[in-house]
Amino acid sequence: MEDKWLNSLITKDAQDGYELAIKLSRMAIKFTQPSEEIRNKIRPEYASNAQNLIASSQVVATNFNTVALANNFWKD
Amino acid sequence: MEDKWLNSLITKDAQDGYELAIKLSRMAIKFTQPSEEIRNKIRPEYASNAQNLIASSQVVATNFNTVALANNFWKD
Amino acid sequence: MEDKWLNSLITKDAQDGYELAIKLSRMAIKFTQPSEEIRNKIRPEYASNAQNLIASSQVVATNFNTVALANNFWKD
Amino acid sequence: MEDKWLNSLITKDAQDGYELAIKLSRMAIKFTQPSEEIRNKIRPEYASNAQNLIASSQVVATNFNTVALANNFWKD
Amino acid sequence: MEDKWLNSLITKDAQDGYELAIKLSRMAIKFTQPSEEIRNKIRPEYASNAQNLIASSQVVATNFNTVALANNFWKD
Amino acid sequence: MEDKWLNSLITKDAQDGYELAIKLSRMAIKFTQPSEEIRNKIRPEYASNAQNLIASSQVVATNFNTVALANNFWKD
Repeated sequence: MEDKWLNSLITKDAQDGYELAIKLSRMAIKFTQPSEEIRNKIRPEYASNAQNLIASSQVVATNFNTVALANNFWKD
Repeated sequence: MEDKWLNSLITKDAQDGYELAIKLSRMAIKFTQPSEEIRNKIRPEYASNAQNLIASSQVVATNFNTVALANNFWKD
Repeated sequence: MEDKWLNSLITKDAQDGYELAIKLSRMAIKFTQPSEEIRNKIRPEYASNAQNLIASSQVVATNFNTVALANNFWKD
Repeated sequence: MEDKWLNSLITKDAQDGYELAIKLSRMAIKFTQPSEEIRNKIRPEYASNAQNLIASSQVVATNFNTVALANNFWKD
Repeated sequence: MEDKWLNSLITKDAQDGYELAIKLSRMAIKFTQPSEEIRNKIRPEYASNAQNLIASSQVVATNFNTVALANNFWKD
Repeated sequence: MEDKWLNSLITKDAQDGYELAIKLSRMAIKFTQPSEEIRNKIRPEYASNAQNLIASSQVVATNFNTVALANNFWKD
């Protein structure tokens, strides 16, 4: 796995926080399936399937909740 | 992806917060499947399928939890 | 979509809060599938299928968590 | 639906709270499928299917989180 | 159902808390399917199926969140 | 099961916390399916299937929420 890919949960604003949530969601897939070749092969499958896209959005929502809490919802 | 699509999690009232939750849910799908053509092709599939509609509602519920917390449930 | 359907997350008691959670769960489905005709056609499908009923209950549970937090669990 | 089925989220102890979580999980199914006849017909289906049993346990876990928070984890 | 199976959410340490989360996850299945015979028959099915194992791990994660909160993450 | 596999939820930084979330996600699978032989047999199945990979990422997201909360988001 990459050496250092997550330095902090703190982001500049909400949109950056959302992009971090997407990154967190993808990293778990990398950890479970380290082979880039296999990931590339199955990527079209999940990116063109309604059920998988919705499930991906659920993972992002869960991670975004964590990131938003960490940043006190960017209210400070 | 769009330049700036998320400025803040703070909304005027609960209903606007719910609509932001829907927007957050859809953005993750855009990030995973950037092709508008493919998204339009699969949209009828997930909007006419009970299982996918319920799963979509689950994503909105998770994002709404985040937005509602950010706004202190619009109690202030 | 309806003009004003969500005024507040605050409810009189826990049971009213639960009913609001059900309403929130259904609204996401309306947003994703605005056609009442299609929704009516698929309704029997998800209301008579164990997996869909359980998934619906999961959405309600998530929304109820939000509503219960908003109301400080009706302890005040 | 029943007149009054939920008076409070406060319970005597953790086990009672868990049983309330189960009740909350079942009520959503009653709201979605009000016909007792249909519910009885599909009950064996979901109670004998591993995937549905696990999904049911997920709903209970989410509701139990809400009930446990409401009771300050029965630490008072 | 068993007379008294849950005395407290407080555990000695994080690992005990994790084991309590597993117990909570299993109890919901017992409540939904009280017949030990049927549970034993479907157990191999869900313990040898990738999708069911991951779903089980999701339930444990949700219950562990509750138990960890109850114990203030074992930081006291 | 292993004697002592979880000492604390506190980690040095966010990335270590994420790795702990992955460990927590895997342990539930070990508890449900203690046979290493069977786990090894089904591993390729879930690591090469889009739906299972996304579901795994969901479990990690839930556990990461718990670990991040335990560490006050590594802000101290």
